[in-house]
Amino acid sequence: MTHKPDIIRIAQAIFTVSDLNASREFYVDLLGMNVLHEENNALYLRGVEDREWTLKLEQCGEGETPRVRHLGYRVRDEAALDALVGLADEQKLPHRWEEELDRPRMLRMQDPFGIPVVFYHDVKTHPWLLQEYHQHRGPGLQRVDHCNVRVPDVKATLDWYCAELGFRVSEYTVDEQGGYWAAWIQRRGGVHDFALTNGAGPCLHHWAYWMPDAMSIIKTCDILAGARMPERIERGPGRHGVSNAFFLYIRDPDGHRIELYTSDYITVDPDFEPIRWLRDDPRRQTLWGAKTPRSWFEEASPMEAFGGGIQEAKEGPLTGIPVHVI
Amino acid sequence: MTHKPDIIRIAQAIFTVSDLNASREFYVDLLGMNVLHEENNALYLRGVEDREWTLKLEQCGEGETPRVRHLGYRVRDEAALDALVGLADEQKLPHRWEEELDRPRMLRMQDPFGIPVVFYHDVKTHPWLLQEYHQHRGPGLQRVDHCNVRVPDVKATLDWYCAELGFRVSEYTVDEQGGYWAAWIQRRGGVHDFALTNGAGPCLHHWAYWMPDAMSIIKTCDILAGARMPERIERGPGRHGVSNAFFLYIRDPDGHRIELYTSDYITVDPDFEPIRWLRDDPRRQTLWGAKTPRSWFEEASPMEAFGGGIQEAKEGPLTGIPVHVI
Amino acid sequence: MTHKPDIIRIAQAIFTVSDLNASREFYVDLLGMNVLHEENNALYLRGVEDREWTLKLEQCGEGETPRVRHLGYRVRDEAALDALVGLADEQKLPHRWEEELDRPRMLRMQDPFGIPVVFYHDVKTHPWLLQEYHQHRGPGLQRVDHCNVRVPDVKATLDWYCAELGFRVSEYTVDEQGGYWAAWIQRRGGVHDFALTNGAGPCLHHWAYWMPDAMSIIKTCDILAGARMPERIERGPGRHGVSNAFFLYIRDPDGHRIELYTSDYITVDPDFEPIRWLRDDPRRQTLWGAKTPRSWFEEASPMEAFGGGIQEAKEGPLTGIPVHVI
Amino acid sequence: MTHKPDIIRIAQAIFTVSDLNASREFYVDLLGMNVLHEENNALYLRGVEDREWTLKLEQCGEGETPRVRHLGYRVRDEAALDALVGLADEQKLPHRWEEELDRPRMLRMQDPFGIPVVFYHDVKTHPWLLQEYHQHRGPGLQRVDHCNVRVPDVKATLDWYCAELGFRVSEYTVDEQGGYWAAWIQRRGGVHDFALTNGAGPCLHHWAYWMPDAMSIIKTCDILAGARMPERIERGPGRHGVSNAFFLYIRDPDGHRIELYTSDYITVDPDFEPIRWLRDDPRRQTLWGAKTPRSWFEEASPMEAFGGGIQEAKEGPLTGIPVHVI
Repeated sequence: MTHKPDIIRIAQAIFTVSDLNASREFYVDLLGMNVLHEENNALYLRGVEDREWTLKLEQCGEGETPRVRHLGYRVRDEAALDALVGLADEQKLPHRWEEELDRPRMLRMQDPFGIPVVFYHDVKTHPWLLQEYHQHRGPGLQRVDHCNVRVPDVKATLDWYCAELGFRVSEYTVDEQGGYWAAWIQRRGGVHDFALTNGAGPCLHHWAYWMPDAMSIIKTCDILAGARMPERIERGPGRHGVSNAFFLYIRDPDGHRIELYTSDYITVDPDFEPIRWLRDDPRRQTLWGAKTPRSWFEEASPMEAFGGGIQEAKEGPLTGIPVHVI
Repeated sequence: MTHKPDIIRIAQAIFTVSDLNASREFYVDLLGMNVLHEENNALYLRGVEDREWTLKLEQCGEGETPRVRHLGYRVRDEAALDALVGLADEQKLPHRWEEELDRPRMLRMQDPFGIPVVFYHDVKTHPWLLQEYHQHRGPGLQRVDHCNVRVPDVKATLDWYCAELGFRVSEYTVDEQGGYWAAWIQRRGGVHDFALTNGAGPCLHHWAYWMPDAMSIIKTCDILAGARMPERIERGPGRHGVSNAFFLYIRDPDGHRIELYTSDYITVDPDFEPIRWLRDDPRRQTLWGAKTPRSWFEEASPMEAFGGGIQEAKEGPLTGIPVHVI
Repeated sequence: MTHKPDIIRIAQAIFTVSDLNASREFYVDLLGMNVLHEENNALYLRGVEDREWTLKLEQCGEGETPRVRHLGYRVRDEAALDALVGLADEQKLPHRWEEELDRPRMLRMQDPFGIPVVFYHDVKTHPWLLQEYHQHRGPGLQRVDHCNVRVPDVKATLDWYCAELGFRVSEYTVDEQGGYWAAWIQRRGGVHDFALTNGAGPCLHHWAYWMPDAMSIIKTCDILAGARMPERIERGPGRHGVSNAFFLYIRDPDGHRIELYTSDYITVDPDFEPIRWLRDDPRRQTLWGAKTPRSWFEEASPMEAFGGGIQEAKEGPLTGIPVHVI
Repeated sequence: MTHKPDIIRIAQAIFTVSDLNASREFYVDLLGMNVLHEENNALYLRGVEDREWTLKLEQCGEGETPRVRHLGYRVRDEAALDALVGLADEQKLPHRWEEELDRPRMLRMQDPFGIPVVFYHDVKTHPWLLQEYHQHRGPGLQRVDHCNVRVPDVKATLDWYCAELGFRVSEYTVDEQGGYWAAWIQRRGGVHDFALTNGAGPCLHHWAYWMPDAMSIIKTCDILAGARMPERIERGPGRHGVSNAFFLYIRDPDGHRIELYTSDYITVDPDFEPIRWLRDDPRRQTLWGAKTPRSWFEEASPMEAFGGGIQEAKEGPLTGIPVHVI
């Protein structure tokens, strides 16, 4: 393979949910996400800057465990898809062509770590809502920002994404022995399209939207509190040491974790030096020193295996969690 | 009369409007005001902190000019109403008893300057929406803050309100000859319940709501722009030199002017010294030096005369407008 | 006594500190408080809206425990001071006249619960810094807002302040047996000048400043984190259920607790009904459901006894702390 | 030439100023820019996220007109510089090698339109101040965002930058006859690194910094007003229709115009369709409909010619200015 496939950015995810009405209340009525399209068993959602759907919610079958069906990246052109097929063939990665609403040609692949990813170039876009401020509701989620996956071997995973897909590291965390405990990698010139966190996996740790400012994140807390759902607020608001972002983590009715995120920095310079953090530096998780709830480390969404069913979550060599936990 | 009537605060206004549906779109759909009660020809609105309606909109009759039917103050007790009747009798001010939704006993009076005011103590309150954040819409108007009336003789008007109703001056503006050009007077311990501006009158210059913060005021601009109604934004956002408030002036479909206002200061100290401004100090109108549109000085809402019809607007001795105008 | 003494508002406090330089770094360099006057062993500080000093820091003697020397209220006139002397005489409360910078005549009294309070009317004020924005530093503390004292008998304390000093209750908390666990009482028309929390006392729980907006509170967290002092941030930022305020609790180098506070509501109506909360309602402490660190309940500043030395902190009948604690 | 030179982003500018002390007061004391290095006749400034200096101010000689000495772009590698030399040779563009603090090898070129630009790859970076929040002063300018140059032929200029340097158009404005009146072009994946505005030129219209949020822009207005310099505020704050950014334009003591800018959108998608505006659409300049001061169209900073002296500003074929002007 002569060229790396040119990945543009993280672009979409599909979650299955146990009660689509409950999910609608959470994502649409409270978070104010915008319904681009609706079917009997599915909602296609987007933020106000998104020109395409960025989160699809599917009603899962009776007794099925809610899961992440895939994470999706936009690529530069069809040649990038060809290169990805070449990579999949070469590395014997399971793959197939799929289609979805507005995306007639998506390459689904299971990466070497079991993460279900799709890649697409062709997409039908829609007028955005960015300047339709009178139609914004709730806190006004703006655009998809990144995904974070819990994996048993952070180093191996990030190495593969950097070597094969051209990702670049913006920040990373090591434990006392120098083992990679987390990493933030990017294609788009921001802090990350994709983050990796140590733990049993692959599981989706969270799916993140960019917010217009910190106050819109605070408004989200107020809205969830007003709706008598303070338990949906898991962590934050706060300032991450990593990424410098102002953040909030919330949990949807099935426990899928959503991060609302704003105010990071740019990483376009070719000699940008990745920022290194020690796992137990109190300023790393929250610059302000706030501790993290244990659930944030212990809970994550299962991912769909290529052949169907749930991908088994495997433990890796690094154990334990950071010390600043409650 | 031995005691001054104990006025608590500015509390309500009634506007007549030429098209109640257009007004509803403006106040409810765009500004997000909350409908407390609705009748065939009227809407009773409130902010999220208001425990009672604070703005009533009435459909006016065919060919009638939209107007302000009255401005209303809450008083401490029934004794205050008795004192007000005593004052009206003594000064031969037209007055009568009226009732309104949730307010069974309101004293309507025409003050010596022709301003239609009502006073009430007894009111049925309702649970507020302050912490029902999931129900807040638009920029989230919080509570009635003050009214501003254009009058031909600012000094005489403020003197009467201070002498007879116990108002206190927080700030005032004089022209080069020392003539009173504007004044801000209060009962509640903030900057003002009532402001007076020089010009033909009595006319309502504006009716103001307190906003949770400056960003909610900026959001209002975005919402009106999104709805393709930028012409509803007349002045601001900006910081007043007077009052130090962050402000925005918008015009409803009939031209009634609404101020959205936040972040002033407290005036409870007994020796608070009124702040004096020169009319043409560039920092007075807008601390940032921005000029004021001419319409802001020249347009205002007519007020209802005691016997019905419109109160004639009379010119006073001070003419001209401030120099920082566009 | 025929008239209650007319208390205007909470106005000042004096803290002793073990290292005035460390305190200066915290209050002046990081919080950006403004030095109104400085002496060899003392700093007189104020917020940008304060026209007088509102917090005095005194270097305490070798081996002395840092403490609160007094909490001070402004009263309407000298007659109010006379009335307070009458009250002190009648109830045999220790009292004496003192003077301080800009305040030549302060009545110091030990209230029936051992809290050292001073009252004054005469004060020399100074031009404020409210519109001297180019001189604001750090997060821009605006004005003194309230104090909170931990006492063993909340009900008895609030009853005395209401009956003798004319305070009014805005909110209160009861435990499952209906015992008063906390109360917020006011003179100024806001949520509180004075709050009472159950526990060993009297001890100062916290001293609070009003902030211009929520973002200035978030900025405080960033500043303390930047200075590598995240441990000074004890609780928050968050939204209180009680008071609806956006808050942050920080600890000075001696552990004195400062609250930064914004966005509550007005309470001037004569029939304002106090809001009742259950102690263990998760939305009470933090509307968003966040738990409170144990230190927030267990630590407080000792208060000076009338004759000198530290007032002994006594336990009361209600034991335990709220369940939402970490 | 087989490859286009890989431009990363706009990176720096050099202004000459008539009084370095007055400029220091403006940029350092009021705007809070950070001094990275200082010499007798020059200040090297940066925002808190900048890892290198991004604005150099040089004292100009007696009687010299303050000007823009150059605008600078960072390129990916030395090969990009070689390609630029090839382009300059091929198109006979004046060019030479220069060096500056921390940048030993800069290629200075005069583009075909007379704009003085430099390109560099090698740079010594410095630890940023992004998380040193306790050291942030004033409104906290974050990082260089873009430059805007007034040129007599917008279309020709943008075509050259797109064809030769690989810029992409994010938005553009046409007049009623379809003539290009303005354009926003980018390399970095945001709205713009470089904007072009119709008028006599080449002249620098403005140099822009990214701000952390809208409130920091409002704070800038307050600071300039506090310092009794409201006349330094030329336009805004407001929301641009173009770019959707929240903006403020201020003028330094020599009239160089600085934009403070936040909250635009991302443009990384390969099929991003440029947004087209009509010149006289009232929502284009300010989404809220606010008019623009005439000075904003008529005043701009001269640029240095390659051989020294001032580049003559030439008029182009499109005349007039937008109608929404005051």
